[in-house]
Amino acid sequence: MKISAAQVKELRERTGAAMMDCKRALEEARGDMEKAIVVLRERGLSSAAKKAGRATKEGSIFSYIHPGAKIGVLIEINCETDFVARTEDFQELGRNLAMQVAAAAPLVVRREELPEEIVEKEREIYRKQALSSGNPENIVDKIVEGKLEKFYHEACLMEQPFIKNDKETVEDLVKAAIAKLGENIVVRRFARFQLGEELS
Amino acid sequence: MKISAAQVKELRERTGAAMMDCKRALEEARGDMEKAIVVLRERGLSSAAKKAGRATKEGSIFSYIHPGAKIGVLIEINCETDFVARTEDFQELGRNLAMQVAAAAPLVVRREELPEEIVEKEREIYRKQALSSGNPENIVDKIVEGKLEKFYHEACLMEQPFIKNDKETVEDLVKAAIAKLGENIVVRRFARFQLGEELS
Repeated sequence: MKISAAQVKELRERTGAAMMDCKRALEEARGDMEKAIVVLRERGLSSAAKKAGRATKEGSIFSYIHPGAKIGVLIEINCETDFVARTEDFQELGRNLAMQVAAAAPLVVRREELPEEIVEKEREIYRKQALSSGNPENIVDKIVEGKLEKFYHEACLMEQPFIKNDKETVEDLVKAAIAKLGENIVVRRFARFQLGEELS
Repeated sequence: MKISAAQVKELRERTGAAMMDCKRALEEARGDMEKAIVVLRERGLSSAAKKAGRATKEGSIFSYIHPGAKIGVLIEINCETDFVARTEDFQELGRNLAMQVAAAAPLVVRREELPEEIVEKEREIYRKQALSSGNPENIVDKIVEGKLEKFYHEACLMEQPFIKNDKETVEDLVKAAIAKLGENIVVRRFARFQLGEELS
């Protein structure tokens, strides 16, 4: 399997791993970039994992107003230093995530932030659907968990497929930025206003 | 008292009242623009009052990111038609109010939205201050109400002095836009993110 220098370079940029580790991971993944990233992560060679615990007090607030001005988004993304906050990579991440929230309308940043009553309501609906379709009781739970998992992927920003490349999630995108910029990066919060929507 | 055509024009633009009513109001107010507006309002000749009850389902979402990107604001302003939402006057109002929220950090749009516990906490603090300064019990209530009123003027967007002209409140600014544009206009909600601030 021949791995090109461009592939190695891309993988290195996305994970921050060493050149030789990137080459080996790509060979093992038979040239598949996404699989190579997983290989590196599993071995702890992607630097994103190591950075994840560090304190983030700097960063930027980003906004995105969709053409027509009927949808608007405000999002806070944190990193460790103002130096990184000012980099074009960080700014691009911010613009992309603001646009993501506008287009894909997540409810929360991550699973833990979903109010229990919303999860319970979803669970109840899936349960009734599964039962009314005549499924035996012993597999209903599995169906419910599967559907709930799908709901999380829609409702939580970090689990959503990235709107510009649905082969990666928002979490992948953030991890790639962490690896590339060498600092922990955290999506802290967002607000999404749609004109005239009901307020909770 | 000589009233200039420019003054009449300005008053007409700000209130939407008829030319002759504007002239008379200015004469009565001895050329004082702000007083003349009050005169027109009192007589129900300013069209802002009449428009205030009408349904607002259109409008725009505005954002403002303060230079440095450490403070960001998202604000929804409603009007009656998309036509008005697209006017330069409405857009200017939106830009001004987004900047106002960034600079003056209100807690809510209007008084009714302040949580009761916040108001009670303020009241309690003012009461203790007034008592510990040795004020007799019978005037403490008046002092507390006065300070609470001041608190409302700081905490509620509509009651804040406009950052670009502290002789008028944000409410005055919105009413002037209502009169000029001939539609009811409502500030529906805002979000203000300051980098790293504590989340409630």
